[in-house]
Amino acid sequence: MIRVGINGYGTIGKRVADAVAAQPDMEVVGVAKTQPNFEAHTAVERGFRMYAAIPERLALFTEAGIEVVGVVDELIAAADVMVDCTPSGIGAENRDRYATYGTPAVFQGGEDASVGDVSFNARGNYADAVGAEFVRVVSCNTTGLSRIIAPLEDAYGIERVRATLVRRGGDPGQNARGPINDILPDPIAIPSHHGPDVQTIFPDVAIDTMGMKVPATLMHVHALNVTLAESPTAAHVREVLGREGRVYLIPPGLGLDGAGTLKEFAYDADRPRGDLWENCVWAESVAVEGRDLYLFQAIHQEADVIPENVDAIRAIFDAADAATSMQRTDEALGVGIRGDPAGFLGAGGVTAGVPQQER
Amino acid sequence: MIRVGINGYGTIGKRVADAVAAQPDMEVVGVAKTQPNFEAHTAVERGFRMYAAIPERLALFTEAGIEVVGVVDELIAAADVMVDCTPSGIGAENRDRYATYGTPAVFQGGEDASVGDVSFNARGNYADAVGAEFVRVVSCNTTGLSRIIAPLEDAYGIERVRATLVRRGGDPGQNARGPINDILPDPIAIPSHHGPDVQTIFPDVAIDTMGMKVPATLMHVHALNVTLAESPTAAHVREVLGREGRVYLIPPGLGLDGAGTLKEFAYDADRPRGDLWENCVWAESVAVEGRDLYLFQAIHQEADVIPENVDAIRAIFDAADAATSMQRTDEALGVGIRGDPAGFLGAGGVTAGVPQQER
Repeated sequence: MIRVGINGYGTIGKRVADAVAAQPDMEVVGVAKTQPNFEAHTAVERGFRMYAAIPERLALFTEAGIEVVGVVDELIAAADVMVDCTPSGIGAENRDRYATYGTPAVFQGGEDASVGDVSFNARGNYADAVGAEFVRVVSCNTTGLSRIIAPLEDAYGIERVRATLVRRGGDPGQNARGPINDILPDPIAIPSHHGPDVQTIFPDVAIDTMGMKVPATLMHVHALNVTLAESPTAAHVREVLGREGRVYLIPPGLGLDGAGTLKEFAYDADRPRGDLWENCVWAESVAVEGRDLYLFQAIHQEADVIPENVDAIRAIFDAADAATSMQRTDEALGVGIRGDPAGFLGAGGVTAGVPQQER
Repeated sequence: MIRVGINGYGTIGKRVADAVAAQPDMEVVGVAKTQPNFEAHTAVERGFRMYAAIPERLALFTEAGIEVVGVVDELIAAADVMVDCTPSGIGAENRDRYATYGTPAVFQGGEDASVGDVSFNARGNYADAVGAEFVRVVSCNTTGLSRIIAPLEDAYGIERVRATLVRRGGDPGQNARGPINDILPDPIAIPSHHGPDVQTIFPDVAIDTMGMKVPATLMHVHALNVTLAESPTAAHVREVLGREGRVYLIPPGLGLDGAGTLKEFAYDADRPRGDLWENCVWAESVAVEGRDLYLFQAIHQEADVIPENVDAIRAIFDAADAATSMQRTDEALGVGIRGDPAGFLGAGGVTAGVPQQER
């Protein structure tokens, strides 16, 4: 059993804790938190041992009726590995503390790439993180791009990726963020940081990204163009993407027309917190013009990096190869959506072998 | 004087009426409207003669205290040219009526291209509309794309255009439209209709467009990629676009970071209805990677087609060549924004000649 400590129990940390707890080869040693807010109560109710991330605030937890086991240094000492889910920039400040205890750590994509020995996406570069001390799981958007780039690069080769990332302004709980009633280029200067971030996973892939922010909270939506080295049919691209366990190829006819309906779909499926761990690619949007592939995908910013955090832990300990780890993670969590009631994806469905003659 | 009748006095019609009235070589014969709403009162207050678009409803206007001169057929008979500003699809139904009276007409981009003998953008294909009976001014988004494509094609040649159009869900007054808190691929299938619509102006330009709708009402924002036949510098592209009277190259440092601030800027400038007739291109966003040009532009969906409607009228009567008509329109309306307080656009500013050595 890999004993996992989690520093930060907010949007990402609480999801990582549940995902780790669900794995057959991992256990949660405890979680650390700075303040006794509603999420701290959630942690206790779910049976996670609570550590005070700021020792001076320990009493605040006790006063709030939350039993605290100790302070974060004790958690770091007790854990085989820490997953740092603190706000952007704090992770880098915590790095030395993890090093002091000789505890390897997984960081989130809000940190600079320099926080890790390697940036990580399970489908993209799992092997690079084997044996690493500090691993950075790339951001939700970069994860979403990497999951599409990897199979396309494998199947066809990529000449250039161009992506417009229409990003939610904030998460549903981030009620102090904007914009309202506006469409903001963000950043105005091109490219956005996402392209270089993808290159931490795929150094040889040429990619230009443009970012925007809009008044929505549920998911990001990417408008993606990939100039391929070949000219496959759209049907063939759907077959290739349909074999990816962390890609949901949305069939037409189900009324899944945007982030709102996708989230409703996730709630109806009893997904915890309505999480969509998969890239949600509209099958109908997949189009090829010459060597130019186009598609739309929705990315649940709170959820898609969760399975990647679990895999990063196994990579650090060389506890499984990439395929085995991803399969174990996905089975334990329930990642993977299939189903094509209207038969849009072809007689073989998305799990059929790729008919080479279609290329 | 060209005597212009306007059928429909809503979002577009009321702006066209003011723009025509401002021209030295045109006058508004009258406007036709289906119902005596607030805009009908506006028309009367501005001195436009009112015609009932639906004869049976004439009495409704009188009851509302609005003097009606006659019915729409009388307006069509009296006018040298009609500008049809009715809702999408109604224009096509009106076409036969205009033909009956031998009155040429300008239609809006909500109609199918087949409504006109030619689709029209002043910068793109003014000459094609000279002497035409029925001219269709392309939509706000297509107009915005055409104004960028024309100078780039002239200066460098274009290999392919790829555009993601992040569209406002509805105009500020269209309070029954959505989305709220969502990002919708619209249409999900790629390409959207905008690409083929651009090809009604530039038949030889390869273009793929992806459309989205978001919870905003003020402007559209385009993320544009153009693969050029040459590799100019970004500074050179800014020079080329800066010479376009209907392109506002937004300098950095002014705080113009999105649609909201652009509209505030327009109100501060005492623009009628806060109209931004120009493409608003963020100068800082203009980037070139190899032969790939990228930029962001905001398009005021209610306003950018207005000068084009005026030019379409002159084209029909061969009353001026393209450059003369555009200059006359722009001077009469006040189109054109210059100014670069921080000197971002270079020592020569945007009106300087293009330094060929930069290419």
